[in-house]
Amino acid sequence: MKVHVHVSLKPGVLDPQGRAIHHALEGLGFGGVNDVRAGRLIELDVSDDTSDDDLDQMCRKLLANMVIENYSIEKKVDA
Amino acid sequence: MKVHVHVSLKPGVLDPQGRAIHHALEGLGFGGVNDVRAGRLIELDVSDDTSDDDLDQMCRKLLANMVIENYSIEKKVDA
Repeated sequence: MKVHVHVSLKPGVLDPQGRAIHHALEGLGFGGVNDVRAGRLIELDVSDDTSDDDLDQMCRKLLANMVIENYSIEKKVDA
Repeated sequence: MKVHVHVSLKPGVLDPQGRAIHHALEGLGFGGVNDVRAGRLIELDVSDDTSDDDLDQMCRKLLANMVIENYSIEKKVDA
C-alpha cells in the first residue's frame, strides 16, 4: 500500500525556505505569487495490514515535529 | 488559488534521506515498511489568473531539478 505523508509548517511559523523560493520566483519574473510555504512529502510503501493508528504514530514519533508542523496522511489506491 | 507542487526523486535515484527514515522507523519498531522515499511539498498561493504553463515553468526553472526529480502540480479548489 502506498501512503503519502504531507508535512507542512503550522501557520504562523516562520518559513525562510518558502520565503527564499518566493523571492527567487519573483526574480525569475513570475508575478502573482502571494505566498510560498515549503514542506516535506514522504512516500511510504507499507504492507497492506498496516493500521491507521500505526501510520499516525509514525508521523507523531518521527516524520513530523508536532511542535511546529502539521501532517496529513493520504492513502493511494493502487490502480 | 492554492497550488500544491509535489517534487520527488525519479525512480532509480539513490535517496539517502529516505533510507535514513526507513531505518529509523524500523528502529522504532514499525514493521511492514517496504520502502520510503523523501521529497518536497511546496504550497503556492498564486493569483487566479496564473496559467498552467506558468506553473509548469516555475517547476521546471526553479522548484524541481529535472535531471533527478519529477514533479506534479495539484490545484486545490477553495471550499
